[in-house]
Amino acid sequence: MDPKKGKKTPAAAKKAPPAPNGDCMQITAKDTLVQTLGEPKIPSPVKRAGGTRFVSDAGRILLESDAGKITAQIQQGMEVVSFEKAGPRANVFFDPSKLRCAIVTCGGLCPGLNDIIRAVVMELWWGYGVRSIYGIRYGLAGFIPKYGYDLVDLDPHYVAEIHQMGGTMLGSSRGPQDIDEIVDCLERLNIGILFTVGGDGTLMAATKICDTIKKRRLKIAVIGVPKTIDNDIYLVERSFGFDTAVEMATHAIRSAHIEAIGYPNGIGLVKLMGRHSGFIAANATLAQQDVNFALIPEIDFDLIGQKGFLSRMKERLAQRGHAVVVVAEGAGQKFFGREKDERDPSGNVRLHDIGAYLKQEIVSYFTGQGTEVSLKYIDPSYMIRSLPANANDNVFCSALARNAVHAGMAGKTRTLVGYWRNQFVHVPMDASAGRRKSCEPASELWQSVLEATGQGDMVNGRD
Amino acid sequence: MDPKKGKKTPAAAKKAPPAPNGDCMQITAKDTLVQTLGEPKIPSPVKRAGGTRFVSDAGRILLESDAGKITAQIQQGMEVVSFEKAGPRANVFFDPSKLRCAIVTCGGLCPGLNDIIRAVVMELWWGYGVRSIYGIRYGLAGFIPKYGYDLVDLDPHYVAEIHQMGGTMLGSSRGPQDIDEIVDCLERLNIGILFTVGGDGTLMAATKICDTIKKRRLKIAVIGVPKTIDNDIYLVERSFGFDTAVEMATHAIRSAHIEAIGYPNGIGLVKLMGRHSGFIAANATLAQQDVNFALIPEIDFDLIGQKGFLSRMKERLAQRGHAVVVVAEGAGQKFFGREKDERDPSGNVRLHDIGAYLKQEIVSYFTGQGTEVSLKYIDPSYMIRSLPANANDNVFCSALARNAVHAGMAGKTRTLVGYWRNQFVHVPMDASAGRRKSCEPASELWQSVLEATGQGDMVNGRD
Amino acid sequence: MDPKKGKKTPAAAKKAPPAPNGDCMQITAKDTLVQTLGEPKIPSPVKRAGGTRFVSDAGRILLESDAGKITAQIQQGMEVVSFEKAGPRANVFFDPSKLRCAIVTCGGLCPGLNDIIRAVVMELWWGYGVRSIYGIRYGLAGFIPKYGYDLVDLDPHYVAEIHQMGGTMLGSSRGPQDIDEIVDCLERLNIGILFTVGGDGTLMAATKICDTIKKRRLKIAVIGVPKTIDNDIYLVERSFGFDTAVEMATHAIRSAHIEAIGYPNGIGLVKLMGRHSGFIAANATLAQQDVNFALIPEIDFDLIGQKGFLSRMKERLAQRGHAVVVVAEGAGQKFFGREKDERDPSGNVRLHDIGAYLKQEIVSYFTGQGTEVSLKYIDPSYMIRSLPANANDNVFCSALARNAVHAGMAGKTRTLVGYWRNQFVHVPMDASAGRRKSCEPASELWQSVLEATGQGDMVNGRD
Amino acid sequence: MDPKKGKKTPAAAKKAPPAPNGDCMQITAKDTLVQTLGEPKIPSPVKRAGGTRFVSDAGRILLESDAGKITAQIQQGMEVVSFEKAGPRANVFFDPSKLRCAIVTCGGLCPGLNDIIRAVVMELWWGYGVRSIYGIRYGLAGFIPKYGYDLVDLDPHYVAEIHQMGGTMLGSSRGPQDIDEIVDCLERLNIGILFTVGGDGTLMAATKICDTIKKRRLKIAVIGVPKTIDNDIYLVERSFGFDTAVEMATHAIRSAHIEAIGYPNGIGLVKLMGRHSGFIAANATLAQQDVNFALIPEIDFDLIGQKGFLSRMKERLAQRGHAVVVVAEGAGQKFFGREKDERDPSGNVRLHDIGAYLKQEIVSYFTGQGTEVSLKYIDPSYMIRSLPANANDNVFCSALARNAVHAGMAGKTRTLVGYWRNQFVHVPMDASAGRRKSCEPASELWQSVLEATGQGDMVNGRD
Repeated sequence: MDPKKGKKTPAAAKKAPPAPNGDCMQITAKDTLVQTLGEPKIPSPVKRAGGTRFVSDAGRILLESDAGKITAQIQQGMEVVSFEKAGPRANVFFDPSKLRCAIVTCGGLCPGLNDIIRAVVMELWWGYGVRSIYGIRYGLAGFIPKYGYDLVDLDPHYVAEIHQMGGTMLGSSRGPQDIDEIVDCLERLNIGILFTVGGDGTLMAATKICDTIKKRRLKIAVIGVPKTIDNDIYLVERSFGFDTAVEMATHAIRSAHIEAIGYPNGIGLVKLMGRHSGFIAANATLAQQDVNFALIPEIDFDLIGQKGFLSRMKERLAQRGHAVVVVAEGAGQKFFGREKDERDPSGNVRLHDIGAYLKQEIVSYFTGQGTEVSLKYIDPSYMIRSLPANANDNVFCSALARNAVHAGMAGKTRTLVGYWRNQFVHVPMDASAGRRKSCEPASELWQSVLEATGQGDMVNGRD
Repeated sequence: MDPKKGKKTPAAAKKAPPAPNGDCMQITAKDTLVQTLGEPKIPSPVKRAGGTRFVSDAGRILLESDAGKITAQIQQGMEVVSFEKAGPRANVFFDPSKLRCAIVTCGGLCPGLNDIIRAVVMELWWGYGVRSIYGIRYGLAGFIPKYGYDLVDLDPHYVAEIHQMGGTMLGSSRGPQDIDEIVDCLERLNIGILFTVGGDGTLMAATKICDTIKKRRLKIAVIGVPKTIDNDIYLVERSFGFDTAVEMATHAIRSAHIEAIGYPNGIGLVKLMGRHSGFIAANATLAQQDVNFALIPEIDFDLIGQKGFLSRMKERLAQRGHAVVVVAEGAGQKFFGREKDERDPSGNVRLHDIGAYLKQEIVSYFTGQGTEVSLKYIDPSYMIRSLPANANDNVFCSALARNAVHAGMAGKTRTLVGYWRNQFVHVPMDASAGRRKSCEPASELWQSVLEATGQGDMVNGRD
Repeated sequence: MDPKKGKKTPAAAKKAPPAPNGDCMQITAKDTLVQTLGEPKIPSPVKRAGGTRFVSDAGRILLESDAGKITAQIQQGMEVVSFEKAGPRANVFFDPSKLRCAIVTCGGLCPGLNDIIRAVVMELWWGYGVRSIYGIRYGLAGFIPKYGYDLVDLDPHYVAEIHQMGGTMLGSSRGPQDIDEIVDCLERLNIGILFTVGGDGTLMAATKICDTIKKRRLKIAVIGVPKTIDNDIYLVERSFGFDTAVEMATHAIRSAHIEAIGYPNGIGLVKLMGRHSGFIAANATLAQQDVNFALIPEIDFDLIGQKGFLSRMKERLAQRGHAVVVVAEGAGQKFFGREKDERDPSGNVRLHDIGAYLKQEIVSYFTGQGTEVSLKYIDPSYMIRSLPANANDNVFCSALARNAVHAGMAGKTRTLVGYWRNQFVHVPMDASAGRRKSCEPASELWQSVLEATGQGDMVNGRD
Repeated sequence: MDPKKGKKTPAAAKKAPPAPNGDCMQITAKDTLVQTLGEPKIPSPVKRAGGTRFVSDAGRILLESDAGKITAQIQQGMEVVSFEKAGPRANVFFDPSKLRCAIVTCGGLCPGLNDIIRAVVMELWWGYGVRSIYGIRYGLAGFIPKYGYDLVDLDPHYVAEIHQMGGTMLGSSRGPQDIDEIVDCLERLNIGILFTVGGDGTLMAATKICDTIKKRRLKIAVIGVPKTIDNDIYLVERSFGFDTAVEMATHAIRSAHIEAIGYPNGIGLVKLMGRHSGFIAANATLAQQDVNFALIPEIDFDLIGQKGFLSRMKERLAQRGHAVVVVAEGAGQKFFGREKDERDPSGNVRLHDIGAYLKQEIVSYFTGQGTEVSLKYIDPSYMIRSLPANANDNVFCSALARNAVHAGMAGKTRTLVGYWRNQFVHVPMDASAGRRKSCEPASELWQSVLEATGQGDMVNGRD
């Protein structure tokens, strides 16, 4: 993989190949090859009714679903791109009776983290008979001796009810840690499988951990469980917690609508999560059809000028007397000077606060026009992130985590568990790390948002 | 289509080809051909950003996703089975300014019906400029003069807030009506597109309506929006309302669990929807991990005998002191004599009440053993059916309905809007009617339920 | 107290003095005298800001709030009836460092039981420094050796999160147990204060336990925490869990309404809790204004005849096409023969199932009239009982439990903690046991229900 | 009443007599006299079962409930203070067939506004037969011609479902309007009863409207429905929407707790409503027992110094690693210079943003100490205000509104409908306007908060 891809500057993000949800992703067959620690020779202790439902490494899921394109490729003798199917293998690489596993949760909270932890523990314990499972506290920092965090000994009793609660019972943290110290810790604890639950930064760290493991010739599998409440992980159709987030986001939008219609020239402004991808904003807009303007990172918009957002808002208020605006946190970054780029502990560019900025710009604009507006600004992000997963995400998280366990037990490594065409698959970390999905202007999703809001194009000077 | 398929006797259901979710469905390429009323020649008034995102009839989605199987088929020169993609076409068949449309909702309530009605109206009105949209009251009965139900004139204002409410604002009813009278009514009203929202019975009726339309040489499109809270429509990966139903079902299971642990030998028994397919029961079991026994129509079980449910329950109580049972309404019908088969107004075999039966059998069994149990029986079905759709179902319903409108406007007919590999597709009604999806014993879904409950096989005399 | 009062036959209930919520209860000043184990001499360890807010035994709350009546009584030299205020006393009777306490939860589940347990433990531990707190498992049965239930050692860590969960973490059971065995157990465990959380049956048992304690000349305080989801405890203005129950009941009513309007002649029938008092049904009717008929135990109604319920239903359907009925479980018992009176383990008369009866009678009636109705019957009782308390009940439960602890520490006994005029008070058990509050026909509550439903009087032959 | 009281400067607020909830309020018998427009001579059309439940003006509810104090007062021949009971009178002042009524909602949103509007309309229409009911749009501004807002014609159909929605369907606005123009409008519309729903500012305006009405010798009744989500209206035990607000506030606190325990040195900071009174913060703290520091306007606290908040926070983090802070919006105003006092359109002092201030101070403090903390700030205010009322508030709002109608029909004026000792009463506007309830340090409520949080006194240099 091109290491520059990992830098995650907005510029790089812009140049990244378009990757609308459900459309073709830009990878080759070679990118989909999954690494293993060695040949799995131990018969799996997993009991399947009839014993015949183990999944073979030969099972593969097509990347694309377009019949014409696939047919043409095959007829031309091209290799079609596909992912290895996830699932329990007939043989496993590790001896469960001796295996020690670790799980770590990193980065921002997301509904479902505890479901992941719970299901990893349950599957290791009941499915494979593994009895040594360690929870690493507070993200990658938990590996580093200087912080002095204790391990958590995990077993089914300990995790039985944690899915009722939001957040992560292990704790989390942001930011990189020394890779050698992390691998030292894995060696010290004699870990066989490490499960990392995190976003793109964690994925990057996981690949480096794999590099060091390889250098040291260790037999440690690293399995990634992709976490992004924004649902923007590349080659992953769905990420856990997203559905719960959209559900709660609609409550915030409803509140904004109620406030907006409650006052003359009432404006409800809701900032939602979405650093680089507007999936939450777009889906919440469709779910709660009260939104008049949806602003997301992928879609350019001007503030001033004839087609600009403020003129459109003025028209809307003149016609209907109220308006609701949803803005993803990464939208409109062009309005801020680039020179001041800061980065957060995870290495992400620190975004400028588009919510506060819009609030101020809207009020100034209308004040300047002699129009009094009543703007109410709602930022529900922390109330969303900290929710327990809803039923849908519960089911998804459990299946995701079980497949992560199956992958690790089979000796897969440097692999994340993805979801493609409604099936769990193995995606090499390198194929996903440093890239992301985005909401394309031409996608059904965005076209539907345009229909639902009636907001039109808000860039001056283009047609 | 084989007319016998439509009889839906349990026997027929059993013989139907296996159709686990995500696995191959048993149809041929010919079955997927979509009928049209004629060539669409009128440029679509739908505005798309860039104008380039209209979907062509040539766009097709593969039925299967297995890379190996598809590659082999194509290399052998076989025609791979695929569905026509749904979406807005560049040309439409009907002149929107003259078109009159009707929508009818049939059968049992299901979360999302009002979202469907709302989005059909919104898309017809705003997307295509159609101004005559009639709501038919109380299902197919609304077409029949003798009942005297008025039409409802639908417009955006009328439907703006109906998605906040459960049920169907048009009303519904069960049972067949005279097909000629229905088509008489369509003629009388000069309807161009009829949208039928309903389950398998409605699908059967819709095909007969199409037959009569054809016989009379009318140009009326009939578009089906598949409705089944049980999520068991054949060739349809997901049906609306199901997600909302599972969410609410978990509350009932939680209650059953709380009651069960609250008393010595406490048993919580929850009956959930699922006449022929246990998808709700299975998913709710996975979402709320308190269930010890999940009983569904597709999976045989005995009550008595060494491996029977009651012995297992006895073991469970001895070990843990409480138990939670989830039973789908169509499970265990073998315990009732077949001679008394009754049918409901929709022609479905009237199911025997397995919930009440189990309640009585469990109490009798333990009383006979001298053990006092505290059994609490919960039937949340009507509280589930009548909910408004959650955010996820909202988004899904709106997209489903918009695609139904696109299909109708393009002159497609005898077609339902399906969902396959996360994309909306056109499915000929005849390919789906009279068959159903079921939860296969060997599927990941059921295997996960077995893991989550630990219930094992409950049929005596097999290994 | 007249021991016959305790028999709780419906007949006795009818003869009981009228006791509408907020109106005068029929007791004398003597009935309000609280018993104590002896003079409290140990300075309370409870820290109060400023140290001055201890409550004195002399603080008393008037039973009545009517200015004219109170003034007249005092001017005539009569003693006005009042209750002793609850709250922390400056001196306590028990030495906290040596004290051992027990808590037991009895009867049906009710939202807030875990809040009570939690707050009793928290106040004993942090407020008074008591370190020996035992949870009795499964109600009064937990005292009886033959069942073999273990005690639970309670401390703040153990109970910290239990209020997030419905039910009772100690378990419960119905029915009486041998009083001597209970007191034997209290002696064996060297208990100083017993907290009993339960309804009228538990109250009766508690008075008998007090009798035996007295006979044996023990120094054991028995403090009752009144529990009745029906809100019908005599001399107690509000009981915990009631508010949560009403909230959830409204969801069931909403479902019934949605089902009713969804079909021709749709009828939604909801059975709610309320053995002898219709407070839940009445309040839920007012909270969710979709109810057309509310049937409660206190208000007589006929089924047939010109003014009977069925005729009224017929009129309603003729006019509006749908109807919603709420029936409390104890309503309409006159329709069942008296000869078959059975009693449940708690000694309550086993009520006949008015919900199932009404369902059948309504359908028969309309079938007989040649009218097809679509009746949907909802019984949400177990889904209500098992809920965690809402915020309002949380706050109430905590305060109630803290006051129970204060009462016990001060050496009060044979006392329950009541709530009167928004203040916590001490009510002698004998003043309340065997009687109950009821919803009077002339009360504002019932008059409001009549206004909200428009149901009118449904008894033939009276005007 | 001292007109200076109305100025509502914080200084004045501080000097106001202490008025803890449930304790004695500082008024005399004279202050409780209710004004009427004249003798009600028209027999009420309200139908009561039995016809005997009309409430007489002679019915009065004691202000105090303390038995000893009341007895002493009466024995000494003092007049005890009491409120006139609310409720339907046997005779009404207005002829319903000719009466025209208006209702206006003012100030900030609050759960239950639509329930109030709905119940006023329902009671006027069905209870009294009034057929002319006007909704004034956007608060007092709706009376003023220059804004050009239309009236809304209200009837039962129009308001039937509005209680399902938050906010006010009439709209609201802040700030005073010209009193003469308002009364001009009332004259023009020939209004007999004006219902004003609003807080203290609205109460002040209502008294001025009454002054002008009197000056012009008009027969217009003005009835106030007290609205304050903060629950701080003087002489009103409970205000609508408060219960709903506390419920939702607990969700924000739960989120803050989950975020706090999710990171090393995690701090969750929640700003809640409460300009002058900390009732929401205090009750939410008790309802969701995760709060470690509750900061409210009534209770002084220092930031720095040995006993200051920041030192306490440091101790807490050292011991437990995380903390949750709840701050009412009016707390800690002493940290801001007084010179910049601004006022909002309603004339309230514009509060400085204590939430943002605390956030910054906490982070600075710990950064200065070399400790990295993870602070998450949540402001759920607009998501709370805009909720529909919960069941409890639904019932309360309906009763409150019905009593407002009864009061107006009987010719009461300059009167608000209060709630005292669980009964609705008439409170002269002048007795309440310009004063407020507050959460007293010595009250059970605050003492309970201190127990629940363990926060102690946070003012340096006092003991």
